[in-house]
Amino acid sequence: MYAFNLAVAILLITAPFSSAFAQTKTIAERLGYPRDSKLLIIHADDLAVAHSEDAASFDALDRHAVTSASIMVPCPWLTEVADYAKAHPDADLGLHLTLTAEWRTYRWGPVESKDKVPSLLDPSGYLWPEVEPAVHNLKADEVEREVRAQIEHAMALGIHPTHLDSHMGTLFARPDLFAVYVRIAHEYKLPFLAAFTPDAPKELRSLLTGKDVVLDSVIIAGPEVGAANWKAFYLSAIKDLRPGITEIIVHLGHDDAELQAVTVDHPDYGAAWRQRDYDAVTSPDFKKAIEDNHVILIRWKDLQKLLN
Amino acid sequence: MYAFNLAVAILLITAPFSSAFAQTKTIAERLGYPRDSKLLIIHADDLAVAHSEDAASFDALDRHAVTSASIMVPCPWLTEVADYAKAHPDADLGLHLTLTAEWRTYRWGPVESKDKVPSLLDPSGYLWPEVEPAVHNLKADEVEREVRAQIEHAMALGIHPTHLDSHMGTLFARPDLFAVYVRIAHEYKLPFLAAFTPDAPKELRSLLTGKDVVLDSVIIAGPEVGAANWKAFYLSAIKDLRPGITEIIVHLGHDDAELQAVTVDHPDYGAAWRQRDYDAVTSPDFKKAIEDNHVILIRWKDLQKLLN
Repeated sequence: MYAFNLAVAILLITAPFSSAFAQTKTIAERLGYPRDSKLLIIHADDLAVAHSEDAASFDALDRHAVTSASIMVPCPWLTEVADYAKAHPDADLGLHLTLTAEWRTYRWGPVESKDKVPSLLDPSGYLWPEVEPAVHNLKADEVEREVRAQIEHAMALGIHPTHLDSHMGTLFARPDLFAVYVRIAHEYKLPFLAAFTPDAPKELRSLLTGKDVVLDSVIIAGPEVGAANWKAFYLSAIKDLRPGITEIIVHLGHDDAELQAVTVDHPDYGAAWRQRDYDAVTSPDFKKAIEDNHVILIRWKDLQKLLN
Repeated sequence: MYAFNLAVAILLITAPFSSAFAQTKTIAERLGYPRDSKLLIIHADDLAVAHSEDAASFDALDRHAVTSASIMVPCPWLTEVADYAKAHPDADLGLHLTLTAEWRTYRWGPVESKDKVPSLLDPSGYLWPEVEPAVHNLKADEVEREVRAQIEHAMALGIHPTHLDSHMGTLFARPDLFAVYVRIAHEYKLPFLAAFTPDAPKELRSLLTGKDVVLDSVIIAGPEVGAANWKAFYLSAIKDLRPGITEIIVHLGHDDAELQAVTVDHPDYGAAWRQRDYDAVTSPDFKKAIEDNHVILIRWKDLQKLLN
């Protein structure tokens, strides 16, 4: 969440890679689909942040309204997600590596011992509330320690992550943090969401190998969509999908007392917003749009297999 | 919560103290009331554990349906309580010192850096889920470190605690832990809830000074009450109050999706239980019973003044 900056920041890295690997098989071909297939991951972020988020996301996963989701390991409802993961071993669950605790009245700290990651803590002892102070203060070696702790803690609870991404894009916001992210993903043989701005330093791209799967497009609703146009935004996005791999990122929740309190004073990515996302992805229209536009739904698990 | 053991464990320490200080003024007299007044603290435990708990407890505090409450500092909703405390500087809020994280699917860790308090952590890295393994594993010096961290963290967030007590009675369960509790309470000049079993070692009692205020009775509903008799239990308890200071301990919440998920698989002290407590203390019958029985409501703040 607070993903507006992320949405702005995400730009495609297909161009340089497409030219470099133009003669190789497309991901679609490697997955057994026609070369120009429109592949789509429908991805729910922020699992474990709240029970309301979990309940809505589990329901959407069970109904195949989303294909994939990722988990915030430092958050209070993690073991609820671990229970779900154990009961649903086929579920496509990654880790939403978390270095911020952005809500006003509901905060969390790191997984690692606090005195081993002091640069991750704001003055009140929780993770930084925004990307900006986080990026200003984080030490890369402490970030690496925390990211490893999050992965190991999730695995110790019985979660087998299928991919990695970065909550609020903090790991995309500094080259040395991105390097930590890529190095650890490679080490654990996990596919990961990558995002570059067009002016991102070239050394960032050089961290990727030809084996890394790069998405062609990432779609996320921003505040400019407007509540009245919510479903139409997604239906239009599905209609406009191009060949290649796209991820639609959603944040699912119920507009209830808990989530209203979690997101208090922050309508963007708030409880009603998440209810709208839930209503959109579970609507018959959404399903029909995918069918009508010959979109092939895939999961990070499919991409994970390509790494091995 | 899980306070049944606590309820069993709480026995009065009035007898030895009454004889020792029989000729001194009673607490009632020191507070300006007749010697044989029936003084009552109505106390909500577990603030910060969940938004549902906070909302119900704030409402009961605002309506003077409870006089006092105490806060679980390691829990996710702490800053919501800190906001309330700052907006309600007169509210009587103590710290419910917390060394356990007892719910199946919703867990929390210590406030102190984990590597400084390893004996407080269960194998999954959260606080112990029950009193028994906690008491078996806790090291007193690490408990002292964590208790100090909880008090300092609460104060750093703008909470001015009026008293201390112990979540699930863990600090009452071993003499060296009780010694930590009393020593820190004395140091911060805070009144505290004390509880002894009749066979408790005498050195426990010797930790208290003549200045410490000792309650004459503690009342808490247990599973044996039965849902149908909930309000009647409290009305009967109020009718039977004796002269001296009594604390009624309640756990307030709304029987909603969040609290149902927090207390999943545990009807005792569960969401419906907490709704019953809320309904009972906010009922006109409860208020009338207090008036009809000439009960004087007091707060820990009143007792705190006697220490200075």
